[in-house]
Amino acid sequence: MTTSGYDRAHAVTMRDVAKAAGVSVATVSHVINDKAGARIGEDARRRVHDAVESLGYRPNALAKTLSRGSSPFIGLVADAIATTPFAGQIIHGAQDEAWKHGYVLLVANTEGNASVERDAIAMMLEHQVRGILYSTWFHREIEVPPTLRQTDTVLVDCFAADEDIPAVVPDEEQGGRVATEELLAAGHQRIAFINTTTPSPAQTGRLAGYRAALAAAGLAYDESLVFQFEPDQGGGYSATAKVLASHATAVFCHNDRVAMGLYDGLRERSLRIPEDIAVMGFDNQDVIAAHLRPPLSTVALPHYELGAAGVRLLLGLDTTRQAMRISCPPIRRSSL
Amino acid sequence: MTTSGYDRAHAVTMRDVAKAAGVSVATVSHVINDKAGARIGEDARRRVHDAVESLGYRPNALAKTLSRGSSPFIGLVADAIATTPFAGQIIHGAQDEAWKHGYVLLVANTEGNASVERDAIAMMLEHQVRGILYSTWFHREIEVPPTLRQTDTVLVDCFAADEDIPAVVPDEEQGGRVATEELLAAGHQRIAFINTTTPSPAQTGRLAGYRAALAAAGLAYDESLVFQFEPDQGGGYSATAKVLASHATAVFCHNDRVAMGLYDGLRERSLRIPEDIAVMGFDNQDVIAAHLRPPLSTVALPHYELGAAGVRLLLGLDTTRQAMRISCPPIRRSSL
Repeated sequence: MTTSGYDRAHAVTMRDVAKAAGVSVATVSHVINDKAGARIGEDARRRVHDAVESLGYRPNALAKTLSRGSSPFIGLVADAIATTPFAGQIIHGAQDEAWKHGYVLLVANTEGNASVERDAIAMMLEHQVRGILYSTWFHREIEVPPTLRQTDTVLVDCFAADEDIPAVVPDEEQGGRVATEELLAAGHQRIAFINTTTPSPAQTGRLAGYRAALAAAGLAYDESLVFQFEPDQGGGYSATAKVLASHATAVFCHNDRVAMGLYDGLRERSLRIPEDIAVMGFDNQDVIAAHLRPPLSTVALPHYELGAAGVRLLLGLDTTRQAMRISCPPIRRSSL
Repeated sequence: MTTSGYDRAHAVTMRDVAKAAGVSVATVSHVINDKAGARIGEDARRRVHDAVESLGYRPNALAKTLSRGSSPFIGLVADAIATTPFAGQIIHGAQDEAWKHGYVLLVANTEGNASVERDAIAMMLEHQVRGILYSTWFHREIEVPPTLRQTDTVLVDCFAADEDIPAVVPDEEQGGRVATEELLAAGHQRIAFINTTTPSPAQTGRLAGYRAALAAAGLAYDESLVFQFEPDQGGGYSATAKVLASHATAVFCHNDRVAMGLYDGLRERSLRIPEDIAVMGFDNQDVIAAHLRPPLSTVALPHYELGAAGVRLLLGLDTTRQAMRISCPPIRRSSL
């Protein structure tokens, strides 16, 4: 079997419609494109619509785009939709919102390769996209590729020093605060924080949220309870001894992968979660958080909402005077 | 800041190019589109090219598409790029291969919703895609949406009873065989298999591969070593007691999530991997396999290759007389 080996339905043309309706091609065009000022009788109009329906005629979307001078596309340039289970939800949110407003998403995955990125943006500009969402798989500051200035752009899950470019990002500080508040509400006062070694908005924002929650609860900030480890399972596992030496009764982990590694470290010492120590994650990473033993309480990164908000900003349906921050909701399971 | 609040570069038109080059718009059009038969002097031609370059003029890709009567798009309809970390690699492979041949991927994520799927296919047909890849996030048999027959279609990670439609799928049987062979090569002869409860090509194919590897090694098939559990962490955890009662020295797990649950069950009984029992996964799921303790040996699902092969089939660069099967390579880590 080959791809060219099967029957391809004959494409119905405007000429076919005109013939079936007994009118000229120009009349069909006027009816289909709903041209103002064209004097066409109700009867002819009805016959065209009937013929369109019975023949299954599809107006050529590209031709329509040219005639109305605008494009039905929104571009999405993503550095890694493929290598992280996260960015997919950004695409999903952007797609749903784009479709709602009659736009189709052109997605390009660049794996962070600058020349692929240049080509992707050039391709989108050539297709006269309505604008481009430029998105990264984790929240960070970026240099804006210069060609992005040739169209409307919104940064999604990233931001530029140049504040002229609208951006939508997760509210890391609010997320860190709510994670800590959940542990406080469960009765803990000595709460360790395993932060990341990677300088990032997540590193500073989640720490600021942790401090704000402690302060609001009237608890002093204790530097000896805050650690920095690699933001993955290995980091969480390595942190175990220091966390236990701090006599914390609860741990806020920089992300779910760190929590997964900490689980391993605690189990090797026969400690029970949450009876001996409570654990809070961050990210709500699909294949991890719900499936650890016990299931991990965490804070969700709002990727779907980031994508949807990005499209709304691009289309001017929402506006923002600085980077728009999207809340990170708590997800309650059984680890505290 | 609003999306309309920043400077948008003035779009360079063909008229601008004509003015800068001192020629007519028609001459610019002829030079840019490399029209045969147009008599244009070398000097004018050079001035047009210089003006195109210095002004940064971009020919309108949509207009070029119309004039050449074919489309630069390949559609990809996916049921769940967003809710699984798998399908992303299918997109990545399809995109890379499409770009290599001058095509752009139009991606639609349907979440399995039939009306969203109809709309997505209609949108792609309206944009006169070269063809459509129809892809599912796990390998299964599908009913082909009728409108897909209106264009060239290739099924990716799925197949239809109607063999007229080309398909590319993972080779489940080869994968099951290589997983079992890895355990045999590590010296095991009593190998349990935790299969899934879900009827699927993975269920039958991986079992067939397990049996083929045992037979090739001269070992009898022992039904009491084969179990069926839910294909996730809970299933693997629940399987622990039965696996241990079978006196197996090694376990081939239907997927990495099952292996992750089995790890938890084994650890609760203070059993060591691989010293007390060896564990083999399937999928090579990013956030799990490399990060368990010990890191999980597994077999990779070839998602990137599925996407790339799908595009090659669609463009007629490869052909296949039945569903094309892509090998699942072993990934060696420390659990056997």
